[in-house]
Amino acid sequence: MPRLTEDWLRQVLRTFYQQRTLTRTDLLNATGLNPASASHAIRHLMDRGVVVKTGEVESNGGRARDVLDLNNEAGYFVAVDLEGASIRFALTNLVGDIRFRIEKNLEPNQPIDVGVVVDAVHSLLNQLSDLQRRRVLACGVSHPGMCDELGRITAVNLGWSAVPLLEGLRSALGFPVYLENAHRTCIFAERWLGSARGSSNSIYVIVGNGIGIGAFVDGKILEGHAGLAGEIGHITIDPHASDLCLCGRRGCLEAVASCASIARQYFSQAFQDSGPRAAHRVTEVFERARQGDALATSVVDRAASYLGIGLAHLVLLLNPEIIVLGGEILAGADLMLGRIRSEMERHTLPAFLPGLEIRASSLGLDIGLKGASALAFRESLGAPGFLQSLAGNSGMPRPRVRQGSARSKQGVVAAK
Amino acid sequence: MPRLTEDWLRQVLRTFYQQRTLTRTDLLNATGLNPASASHAIRHLMDRGVVVKTGEVESNGGRARDVLDLNNEAGYFVAVDLEGASIRFALTNLVGDIRFRIEKNLEPNQPIDVGVVVDAVHSLLNQLSDLQRRRVLACGVSHPGMCDELGRITAVNLGWSAVPLLEGLRSALGFPVYLENAHRTCIFAERWLGSARGSSNSIYVIVGNGIGIGAFVDGKILEGHAGLAGEIGHITIDPHASDLCLCGRRGCLEAVASCASIARQYFSQAFQDSGPRAAHRVTEVFERARQGDALATSVVDRAASYLGIGLAHLVLLLNPEIIVLGGEILAGADLMLGRIRSEMERHTLPAFLPGLEIRASSLGLDIGLKGASALAFRESLGAPGFLQSLAGNSGMPRPRVRQGSARSKQGVVAAK
Repeated sequence: MPRLTEDWLRQVLRTFYQQRTLTRTDLLNATGLNPASASHAIRHLMDRGVVVKTGEVESNGGRARDVLDLNNEAGYFVAVDLEGASIRFALTNLVGDIRFRIEKNLEPNQPIDVGVVVDAVHSLLNQLSDLQRRRVLACGVSHPGMCDELGRITAVNLGWSAVPLLEGLRSALGFPVYLENAHRTCIFAERWLGSARGSSNSIYVIVGNGIGIGAFVDGKILEGHAGLAGEIGHITIDPHASDLCLCGRRGCLEAVASCASIARQYFSQAFQDSGPRAAHRVTEVFERARQGDALATSVVDRAASYLGIGLAHLVLLLNPEIIVLGGEILAGADLMLGRIRSEMERHTLPAFLPGLEIRASSLGLDIGLKGASALAFRESLGAPGFLQSLAGNSGMPRPRVRQGSARSKQGVVAAK
Repeated sequence: MPRLTEDWLRQVLRTFYQQRTLTRTDLLNATGLNPASASHAIRHLMDRGVVVKTGEVESNGGRARDVLDLNNEAGYFVAVDLEGASIRFALTNLVGDIRFRIEKNLEPNQPIDVGVVVDAVHSLLNQLSDLQRRRVLACGVSHPGMCDELGRITAVNLGWSAVPLLEGLRSALGFPVYLENAHRTCIFAERWLGSARGSSNSIYVIVGNGIGIGAFVDGKILEGHAGLAGEIGHITIDPHASDLCLCGRRGCLEAVASCASIARQYFSQAFQDSGPRAAHRVTEVFERARQGDALATSVVDRAASYLGIGLAHLVLLLNPEIIVLGGEILAGADLMLGRIRSEMERHTLPAFLPGLEIRASSLGLDIGLKGASALAFRESLGAPGFLQSLAGNSGMPRPRVRQGSARSKQGVVAAK
């Protein structure tokens, strides 16, 4: 019997995470492990209740093969989504299913208060029974803006400057905390739990107040030298466009095609209203376009056309298999998707099109939470000690973490 | 003593390849290997003459530390560069120094003849002594166009269609053959042997008849779903430009800023000459611009400005540390580089600029050969059997490495 290595366990867990239900043969094919190593790892995970046998299938030779499932409830993650008008907190199981959630409104244009975040995570944890709390493995946070090496968040357009989130959460919680920009957590969610599942070359494009992407390129998250790669919102999509961008330049994709810019273009032309509230009324513009308003239609078409060119840039430079569109733009999907797609095709070489899919995100508003959970799984898997704490949970005497209410056993599961 | 693993040998060799001269401490820092594993690997390579001791330095404690060098002549590669008006063949040492070369003219617009390539490799090999031929490890080929999974090359604008190059070379030569597109071999050359040495985020941009890139992103060569990523030449750099591209669309970067397009724009406007020969006269346009010709200046400035926007797209999407410019455009570097750089900066967010370098390639015309050699090293290192054939070479009877005179009459050393 070979010595069990952490690496085998990681490979097996990652495969179960993505595929959920497998036979040993499926697992061998997916991981490339040799049968002895794979069996050893599976046995280890089964002994600890992380993988369970749930059935049998006939194999070719007639001998029955075990059907194995990941025990999705073998561990939990705290997921925090700081992107958007309110902060959202959830407890998810291993594979990102939301078991329980809390929502808090944010004060507009106020720096986020770390204490509020910590309190909310504590109230979430207090909903759990002892048994469940022992299974909380890590916390994932999906945040706007940028994170420095000390885990401080800066989001200029939200008025956040070096908010010490990592330090605050780490010192208050008894488990690891991971932070990641929301564009990236969204592609984690799409790749592991959504439309881009299993694809090594997939891009999530969010079109909301701004335009951003998270991308998997050749199986790795796109980062770049300083972690800034993927800044599609500020490429000069049209050197002749006069639209002024928040960054101070003209002709950025964001300046001509974000939801905020669609709304601003329409209301400033239709009603000379370029006030700050106009930027939030893109759904009205979509509604007017549906009713045949010519100006609304032309503003929406222009944005769709530029978005198509922007996607074509991504296609030509990154050669993805799947592009998932998300964000408020989906409220106008009926008006825009066809045009976006045809413009993308018109500005791309034909060799890039076979097999290329453009989809609207199906994860809805939960994408940030699911992304934060996927982040926590991904980072945990590589962290020392994680396999012990995951696989050790069900065998050890109760550790009695943080004595909250011995809260109902069902609260967690029932709230899905 | 731990068991020697191939992986340690690979890490040690890769580090020597990049840094050439190292102490054990340098090596430990660079590889992260533990001292016992590293010593074991070094000993193995020294026993076989692949790594040699070349000096000593005082360490802090006063104990002398060995200075170790890669024996650059421990192995040779055949390098073939099929990009350009002639085919170029070279024998290089382990680290890409050219020891011997042959050049053959290509028939314009004729499919390349595999027999001619095989013959040329054979005449190259025939220049070698028996001793040297035993050390030829692999052949690397830098080719234009695309390569299918059977190793057949298609380059539409050269009239090559599914040329069975891999099969032809493999069956004629007794060692492994590796093929790669020229844009990628060029970034291999720049990353391992040229200006981008050691950088994990570097892009080689070639501006010649077309415009293409090879890119390292987060330490890996950029490939994409179908291996097509990096097609900067055909992004729509200006949706309003009327310049027609060879691909049939308008406003592609290549249509407004390649050397062929610069020449075409100038000669068609100045002399109504848009014949096929005009495309090859870009150096004349540069010369006229230097002499103050207003039309030449404006054509060159327009191209530089679009190239700057194109580089800005690369900067924003891939966040590189280094961009190396190569190709015929360098003949006009004095006229264009400043403008390219300032336009790039104007169309990029400031956060991307600190530390970003834009350099002209310093590898000159040999870049394709050096890239083919770097390709051969890179692929060989991962191939089963390579470490045996490299480290086994000098264990055979009487190699007498370093005896210069025995080699120089063969021209191997003299031809550098």
